[in-house]
Amino acid sequence: MTPQGDDGRGAQIVMAHGGGGELTRRLLAEHIVPPLANDLLDPMTDSAVLPPIAGRLCLTTDAFVVQPLEFPGGDIGTLAVCGTVNDLAVMGAVPIALSLAMVIEEGLALDTLDRIVASIARSASEAGVVIATGDTKVVERRDTEGMTITTAGVGQVRQDANLAAGRIGPGDVLILNGHLAEHGLAVMSARKGLSFQTDLLSDVAPLGGLVQALLDSGADVKFLRDPTRGGLAGLLADLADETSLGIEIDEQAVPVTPATRNTADMLGLDVLTVANEGKVVAAVSADDADAALAACRAHPLGRAGAVIGRFVHAEVPLVEMMTSVGGRRIVSRPYGEDLPRIC
Amino acid sequence: MTPQGDDGRGAQIVMAHGGGGELTRRLLAEHIVPPLANDLLDPMTDSAVLPPIAGRLCLTTDAFVVQPLEFPGGDIGTLAVCGTVNDLAVMGAVPIALSLAMVIEEGLALDTLDRIVASIARSASEAGVVIATGDTKVVERRDTEGMTITTAGVGQVRQDANLAAGRIGPGDVLILNGHLAEHGLAVMSARKGLSFQTDLLSDVAPLGGLVQALLDSGADVKFLRDPTRGGLAGLLADLADETSLGIEIDEQAVPVTPATRNTADMLGLDVLTVANEGKVVAAVSADDADAALAACRAHPLGRAGAVIGRFVHAEVPLVEMMTSVGGRRIVSRPYGEDLPRIC
Repeated sequence: MTPQGDDGRGAQIVMAHGGGGELTRRLLAEHIVPPLANDLLDPMTDSAVLPPIAGRLCLTTDAFVVQPLEFPGGDIGTLAVCGTVNDLAVMGAVPIALSLAMVIEEGLALDTLDRIVASIARSASEAGVVIATGDTKVVERRDTEGMTITTAGVGQVRQDANLAAGRIGPGDVLILNGHLAEHGLAVMSARKGLSFQTDLLSDVAPLGGLVQALLDSGADVKFLRDPTRGGLAGLLADLADETSLGIEIDEQAVPVTPATRNTADMLGLDVLTVANEGKVVAAVSADDADAALAACRAHPLGRAGAVIGRFVHAEVPLVEMMTSVGGRRIVSRPYGEDLPRIC
Repeated sequence: MTPQGDDGRGAQIVMAHGGGGELTRRLLAEHIVPPLANDLLDPMTDSAVLPPIAGRLCLTTDAFVVQPLEFPGGDIGTLAVCGTVNDLAVMGAVPIALSLAMVIEEGLALDTLDRIVASIARSASEAGVVIATGDTKVVERRDTEGMTITTAGVGQVRQDANLAAGRIGPGDVLILNGHLAEHGLAVMSARKGLSFQTDLLSDVAPLGGLVQALLDSGADVKFLRDPTRGGLAGLLADLADETSLGIEIDEQAVPVTPATRNTADMLGLDVLTVANEGKVVAAVSADDADAALAACRAHPLGRAGAVIGRFVHAEVPLVEMMTSVGGRRIVSRPYGEDLPRIC
């Protein structure tokens, strides 16, 4: 019942799948809605009606344009769910519902779409959230098989979360939950024309459980953010600006695996600027550093967690790295990115 | 401070604008955030914290891929705001906040982006809603200057709204708030290779005020939906399926301007299948038809409103058009669409 490709590669997306007519109805009914089925989505109305939410509500959105669509450790569907639930998590919010908008290029194999929708369903289940509503459009064929996905998420802010960069003071420490740079390098390893030998997998994961564990620990967690585009370097540069404080990072304390270090060195990349999708940076009062670190390390996504640095008084709010050989270097916000379309 | 185009056409989007680094920060700070500024957006955190919402909450999303980006009567920015607030409106919800995700192609003129962001700001203001959060990505250059926009919206459902297709019964009437098919034809008139003489403007408009007026009228409004992709024909075919009722439409009662009729005839199009972006169909109990129609016509966006048909018992739930010459024809859901990328 679905169009066959002209080239014998099996069924593909055609422009009429995006027209709002009979073929759109079938695409939704046969490929998109069943894997995602839940009580909020199933009425298929123009908007989903959500359960009542007490307290403060968070809204966030992310557009995902990663190429290729599938890479070691995940795909654009995994990313689209994790990226948005993580943006809620770092606000101290428990995710309630996501929206899912897909812009699919003509020619995409329906098999690929099916795998990506299955990843969306699996990641949403892992994150404890449902796809409540969506939209699907089709655009003209490009050179590559492609699609972009935009998710938005609604979450309920924990009553006890009090997260704001303005609460950070000198002496507060920075905790990172694990190894850097694995997402960006895994995507690069799958990019045409860049293939190199690596066993690296993307770290893409939903961080809600880890963040809940940090907040449950009783530590005074003052601020959370996930180092995605721009990497840890971009996050720290922003944070120095927002707090008007200096930041000192201890290079030896930053968790990076030897495989990642070797791969980054080979490619001439700075691990601090490479994108992550399963990492979170927490600013915590120094007195609570041990409690927060213990809670982090007790969670499966935080076993390699570490205190990587601290905030200091500074005339000019710069990020400085204490290098392993006893030197100091300024960590700057990257100008662009090492490789585009990494998320 | 922004890159100049190589071809002398002025500043353009480059890949590094999407990298999450310094150039991304400048793009946001100089071109995107200032026109949209509001208390929810200004903290620039990963998620926006919304004001408390009492009662039921609605979530919706739409992806917009219209080509060209600017057309008579609106642009992709106008569409992105109106489409999403209208999806909330037809659920009986008052919009509270929108998210805005833009995927911009390398090479887009910054002047074009500025005009589109200004349209977003103006349309949001008209609709009484704010852009609370967003994301911006850049993808490789295509043949055309292009971008896609995905908006998601959160709204609060009116306590007195009781809208569900299941409430519709035989005898209930259908009201349409004005002239059909103007959006689709206006976009076609601006499409390269299709240009033809017309003064038609897109009907794109935020429908919240009109829907509030309908609900305030006291009429028993049982169901609302906006005939966008797939046009009125697609909407009615869906509604016949959902209610298991027949629908009879009176061709002479359907508001279509002579200019629209002539243009559609010239292009060989059925006005019932062409997309609209400022129209709403209301199913109302027959006793309340006069009250609802009066409320509709008293609103600036409903002056040409009309009762266009009714629900009837039927063995097979079909949509039938009573033609102006006394015949009947079946109205089917379009297979694809007359022209892709209309919204």
